[in-house]
Amino acid sequence: MTKQQLFQNILRKKSFLCVGLDTDIKKIPPHLLQGEDPITALIIFNQAIIDATQAYCVAYKPNLAFYESLGLKGYFALEKTVAYIRQKYPDQFIIADAKRGDIGNTSEMYARAVFESADFDAVTVAPYMGEDSVKPFLVYPNKWVILLALTSNKGSQDFQLMTDAQGERLFEKVLKKSQEWASDEQTMYVVGATQGKMFEDIRKIVPNHFLLVPGVGAQGGSLEEVARYGLNSQCGLLVNSSRQIIYADSTERFAEAAQRETQILQQEMSKYLEWIPSIK
Amino acid sequence: MTKQQLFQNILRKKSFLCVGLDTDIKKIPPHLLQGEDPITALIIFNQAIIDATQAYCVAYKPNLAFYESLGLKGYFALEKTVAYIRQKYPDQFIIADAKRGDIGNTSEMYARAVFESADFDAVTVAPYMGEDSVKPFLVYPNKWVILLALTSNKGSQDFQLMTDAQGERLFEKVLKKSQEWASDEQTMYVVGATQGKMFEDIRKIVPNHFLLVPGVGAQGGSLEEVARYGLNSQCGLLVNSSRQIIYADSTERFAEAAQRETQILQQEMSKYLEWIPSIK
Repeated sequence: MTKQQLFQNILRKKSFLCVGLDTDIKKIPPHLLQGEDPITALIIFNQAIIDATQAYCVAYKPNLAFYESLGLKGYFALEKTVAYIRQKYPDQFIIADAKRGDIGNTSEMYARAVFESADFDAVTVAPYMGEDSVKPFLVYPNKWVILLALTSNKGSQDFQLMTDAQGERLFEKVLKKSQEWASDEQTMYVVGATQGKMFEDIRKIVPNHFLLVPGVGAQGGSLEEVARYGLNSQCGLLVNSSRQIIYADSTERFAEAAQRETQILQQEMSKYLEWIPSIK
Repeated sequence: MTKQQLFQNILRKKSFLCVGLDTDIKKIPPHLLQGEDPITALIIFNQAIIDATQAYCVAYKPNLAFYESLGLKGYFALEKTVAYIRQKYPDQFIIADAKRGDIGNTSEMYARAVFESADFDAVTVAPYMGEDSVKPFLVYPNKWVILLALTSNKGSQDFQLMTDAQGERLFEKVLKKSQEWASDEQTMYVVGATQGKMFEDIRKIVPNHFLLVPGVGAQGGSLEEVARYGLNSQCGLLVNSSRQIIYADSTERFAEAAQRETQILQQEMSKYLEWIPSIK
C-alpha cells in the first residue's frame, strides 16, 4: 500500500485507528472454547473482531509473540488471520508487530517471512543493529518498515533517552540516521502515546512520516494529546489500541462491545482529523 | 542448564563451539531434495549436521529467521530440529537466535514461545526497549537471556558506539545497566568476533559473563583474537560458526565436511582452553 492510499483510506473512514490483535487464548470469551479446539476458537474470535471493527479502522496489527507462544498451531492461526483480512478487507493495512532486526542475510529471511510467506504490508523493526539490519526489508515495493524510535514502555528510558555530548538523544539519532536509508514512502516510526509532548520534538525531525502510536488505552496514553502534537497534513498517525477493544467484553456479545469501542475511538478521531487544514 | 554445567561440557569436549543452524533451503545439497519435499529434506539435513558435529561442539543455535521465512512448514522444521537435539543430545545448549524484545506483556509471550512451547535453553534479545522488555525472559530457572551488546555487522557502528558526555558508549551502558536485572548465571552477551580488541573493554565491565561470539568464518573474525581477549577463568566464550560448517560441502559428503570443519575449530579451541590457568 502506498502512503497516498493509506491517507485516502483514513479520509474515507475518518479514522486513523489500528486494531491490535494481541490475542491471548486465556482471555478470549469462554463460550468460544466450548466444543472447539483452542486454536479454532482463537481464529473464530479474531475473525469476529475483524468483522465487527473493520468499518472503523484502517489497519490491523497482529502481535506475533501472542501467536508464537502457542507454537506451530499459533503460527497457523496467525496465517489464517492475515489471509482472512487480506481476502475480505483488502483495503486494510496489515502490520506484523514483530520487532525483528538482525545482520543482513538474516533480516533478509525475516523480510521473506513477513512479506512473502505471509502477506503483511509492514513490519516493526528494532534499530539496535543499524543499517544492514533494516535495509533488507526495504527492497519490497509498497511494503513498509516501522522502526522503533521512542516506545511506550517504562524501559524506553533505559537507553532510548541516552544523550551524546551535543545533546542528541538515541531515539533522535535513529530518526535522523534512518532517513538516509529510505523515505517517508517506506518508513514509519513507533512512538508511544505515553510520550506526550515528546511528539513535538519528534515532528521537528520527521514532519512527514507516519508514526505508529501504541499505548492509548491500557497503557495510559491520551489520544487527544497524540493528535494535538502528532497530526500532520497527511494525518501521519496510526494509533493502535489492542486490549481495550478486543477484550471489551467476555460474553457472547464480545464483538458488539469491540465494535462499540472502535466506534467511540473513530468518532473521537474524526474530530481531530478536522484539525488538518486541507480537510476542514 | 547452569553456568557450571555448561563449563563442564566445555572442559569435557575441549570445545566452546556453537554450531549455527542458519539452514537455507536454497543451499542444502541438491541430492537431499530429490524424492523428498523440501521441508523433510531440511529436517534430514539438520539431523545429519547435528549427528556429524555434536561430538565437537557444546551448543546449537538455530536462527529463527531462516525457518520463519518458510512459513508454517519452516516452523515445523524448527520444532523438529530442537526436539531432535534435546532428545538425542541432552547435553547440548540450544540457543534461539531470535533477537526478540517488546513491552512486558509481549516479551512474556516470546518467553513462552522459546522456553515453554519450544525447549530452548537461551534466547537472544535486543536491548533497545529496556528493562521490562528483558525481564520476562528471566523468570525461567536455568534459562538464559543473551543480550545484544556489540554485534558483528557493519551497522553495529550506527548506534551501538554512540557516546555520552562522560565518554560511555551505548553498548557499555547495555552491559552495565543489564547487570542490575540479573547475574552472570542467567545472562550472556552477544559480542561480534569482528570487534577484535573491543573485547578488552568489554571484559572490564563483564569479567565473568559468557559471551556469545558470532562472526568467525564467513564474517571475517579471528578465533585466536577472540580467545586472547575474551577467555575468562570459566571459559566465558561460546563462539558460533554457521555457514563455514553447514555449507562446507554441497555433495553427498556434506556431513563429513561439516564434521571436519567442526573438528578443526575444536582442535584450535582446545589449545586456547589451555591458556586458562586452572586447566593447564
